[in-house]
Amino acid sequence: MIATSIKELFKSASLQQEVQINGWVRTFRSNRFIALNDGSTLRTIQCVLDFENTDESLLRQITTGAALKITGTLVESQGKGQDVEIQIKDIEVHGTADPETYPIQPKKHSMEFLREQAHLRVRTNTFGAVMRVRSALAFAIHDYFRKNDFFYFHAPIITGSDAEGAGEMFRVTTLSDKQPPLDEHGAVDYKEDFFGKETNLTVSGQLEAEAYAMGLGKVYTFGPTFRAENSNTSRHLAEFWMIEPEMAFYDLDANMDLAEDFIKSVLKYILENCEEDLAFLEKRLLDEEKTRPQAERSEMALIEKLRFVVDNHFKRVTYTEAIDILRNSKPNKKKRFEYLIEEWGADLQSEHERFLVEKHFKCPVILFDYPAKIKAFYMRLNEDGKTVRAMDILFPGIGEIVGGSQREERLDVLKEKIDELDIDEKELWWYLDLRKFGTAVHSGFGLGFERLVQFATGMGNIRDVIPFPRTPQNAEF
Amino acid sequence: MIATSIKELFKSASLQQEVQINGWVRTFRSNRFIALNDGSTLRTIQCVLDFENTDESLLRQITTGAALKITGTLVESQGKGQDVEIQIKDIEVHGTADPETYPIQPKKHSMEFLREQAHLRVRTNTFGAVMRVRSALAFAIHDYFRKNDFFYFHAPIITGSDAEGAGEMFRVTTLSDKQPPLDEHGAVDYKEDFFGKETNLTVSGQLEAEAYAMGLGKVYTFGPTFRAENSNTSRHLAEFWMIEPEMAFYDLDANMDLAEDFIKSVLKYILENCEEDLAFLEKRLLDEEKTRPQAERSEMALIEKLRFVVDNHFKRVTYTEAIDILRNSKPNKKKRFEYLIEEWGADLQSEHERFLVEKHFKCPVILFDYPAKIKAFYMRLNEDGKTVRAMDILFPGIGEIVGGSQREERLDVLKEKIDELDIDEKELWWYLDLRKFGTAVHSGFGLGFERLVQFATGMGNIRDVIPFPRTPQNAEF
Repeated sequence: MIATSIKELFKSASLQQEVQINGWVRTFRSNRFIALNDGSTLRTIQCVLDFENTDESLLRQITTGAALKITGTLVESQGKGQDVEIQIKDIEVHGTADPETYPIQPKKHSMEFLREQAHLRVRTNTFGAVMRVRSALAFAIHDYFRKNDFFYFHAPIITGSDAEGAGEMFRVTTLSDKQPPLDEHGAVDYKEDFFGKETNLTVSGQLEAEAYAMGLGKVYTFGPTFRAENSNTSRHLAEFWMIEPEMAFYDLDANMDLAEDFIKSVLKYILENCEEDLAFLEKRLLDEEKTRPQAERSEMALIEKLRFVVDNHFKRVTYTEAIDILRNSKPNKKKRFEYLIEEWGADLQSEHERFLVEKHFKCPVILFDYPAKIKAFYMRLNEDGKTVRAMDILFPGIGEIVGGSQREERLDVLKEKIDELDIDEKELWWYLDLRKFGTAVHSGFGLGFERLVQFATGMGNIRDVIPFPRTPQNAEF
Repeated sequence: MIATSIKELFKSASLQQEVQINGWVRTFRSNRFIALNDGSTLRTIQCVLDFENTDESLLRQITTGAALKITGTLVESQGKGQDVEIQIKDIEVHGTADPETYPIQPKKHSMEFLREQAHLRVRTNTFGAVMRVRSALAFAIHDYFRKNDFFYFHAPIITGSDAEGAGEMFRVTTLSDKQPPLDEHGAVDYKEDFFGKETNLTVSGQLEAEAYAMGLGKVYTFGPTFRAENSNTSRHLAEFWMIEPEMAFYDLDANMDLAEDFIKSVLKYILENCEEDLAFLEKRLLDEEKTRPQAERSEMALIEKLRFVVDNHFKRVTYTEAIDILRNSKPNKKKRFEYLIEEWGADLQSEHERFLVEKHFKCPVILFDYPAKIKAFYMRLNEDGKTVRAMDILFPGIGEIVGGSQREERLDVLKEKIDELDIDEKELWWYLDLRKFGTAVHSGFGLGFERLVQFATGMGNIRDVIPFPRTPQNAEF
């Protein structure tokens, strides 16, 4: 007999059918009712044991966490909470889980404790649901881009270029750690290193994606990126996954249209394909928020919030308009912002972004046309000479989820900017080539995948939406 | 007017329709015929210019590599080689490409030269085709696993564990390169490093994938992996992408079934979805092989070879049977193998694998049940005590494309093996936990993505199937 998954069983098995399943015991009640889960779905199947005719030694092995193979008949359930159950004919124990030492017992564990058990936490309802939704989101992303004729492009992870300047980097080396070779000036001689030069882990695949967009038209990356920043917050990881679409012949408006449509589509996908997991995560979030003061609770439940994003237009506002709104806002006038908005040019903090999204507009917001001074060198300068064609998408509860721009396609303007910033042109020779040869209007954006998973699952800490988080002082597993 | 892609144009535009396209000039003939490509497809669209009514200065800007926006009418083509063409009404030049300096001229460039121009080579027919097929293969992989109820799982890239032992590793650090802090024994004090311990780039996500399979049932990774090996060959990269499925409750037979079905499915996908690109690559390969002696040419053309794999059963042979075949083979008896096969236990070299696949069986081969001594510690020991449940899939022309095994699920056997190999149990505490708590039969395999792209595109050098290859002494771009 071929075993079926529990998901498959609920979907297509018929009553009185002989079935075989494998899974892990979630609970075992009254020496009779085994709740079995195999990860294919949030749901457990109740398996009913004829304990009077079951060996005592076998019974003792059926504890939370044990792996079993169960053969039996699918029947209508007499009990509450499930339609069907399995009347067990045969049990085989794959592996036991000693209740004295197995860490994942059927009780509430703290998130901190579960992070220390990152190899086992996926066996809980919460992490099972989060990781299934994460997987569905990843697929929805690939599916969206494929349907829209984008090509998936793998940006290099190890990079010899440090020009992007998006943050602190990790060095990648095979040189002796204690006594690296030195050159004649007494500096480390990277000519001796594996790649013949100093190399780091990438902070963004954008520049390389631009090269590919200028040949294939529409491309996207979906790969790991790294920041060696000592940020121990619930929103930062040292290693995270990023999606970076890049499109030739797209201006900023087309870029904003794409970003909005993209986010709505992938969230719609999980609303349609992850109903059970999302319902569970919604309930989890409500329970968690009950312990908090009213003011800190979400205004919308999880699924309502996802629907709200899918169904509403994102409000598009220039930076200049946003500054006016903020300058005249109550929290600014009453000095309740930590950073008061006084003049045009100020960088927006999280408190300002949240005010705009959650209090003022009450919907996702796209801010665009930022001051050139607070944005990256590759963003296209507007005719006003002081703003650039940048855009950030701000989400309720989470702040910036997308950052993008139209790219500076004019060689002379880009060169001037690079000189101003004292970036070595030689480092960017190939990036400048894209402007020398067949340059064109083009645009793109970046989306932090874990931020999206956080938004979609309602998980408060980014460490809990990636299987094995990397943060300062932590690279366990 | 909204611009269309050239792919879309060929698919759904109708004659006499007004159209607008953007793209790059491939060739410009007789001051009249522009072949324009935008990367969406291999094909160019012929755009016909009324040069008598076109400004001389504009004409001079239309050279290979220039980016144009063209508006015109789609009409039946009078010329050979295309059904339709565009009668140009308006041309706008996005960006020129000086013919004196633009490296990608309409002539044959060597692969070596194009590698130095990796930011521009995607604008050639060959690399455009390779990268479109690469993207389609990546999508086919995600699609296959999604349809088969696998969850996509992101294994960590930075790892504190060095137990897998699959090869030399790159160190990841933020310590001072010249004067790292030392501990009281004079060794580098990694407690001071970013993660509080020594960390490296992953060589495989398998061990972590096993943890996730033991919770979610069926998972797969698709991410970058790294080898700091000084191998300057046409088959090795320091940074490459790997797919690693891992399945709870799968034995080796189920593992082989899955691997075979998986490879066939993804190749079938590109046969159905990348016809033009494959036809081009097939022709390219034939042209290339014409310059080689008959004996070095492929027996089958590219598409025929892909069809052959899709349509034929993979021959399953034990290592022991294979050794018998090889020992009694002509090249062994006539001492034409570089490494003669004398006794059971010998590791198979590429020449042996190719003999089995290309001369003896003449089809893809799955070798299984290898000697424990030549395989990794985590593979399940057979009852004979000397072989393990390992399997390798061997492909014509390319050798090993998949390596997998049933994993050792028995705690005592695994511990014994780890002790034998002097691996520190503490390093693998969490991996051993998977055998302590709810252990079960499980299996998985790894597939090097670039090897698959090489096979699918017929490209001889692995550096030419990844956008920006990383090899010893090379991390440009």
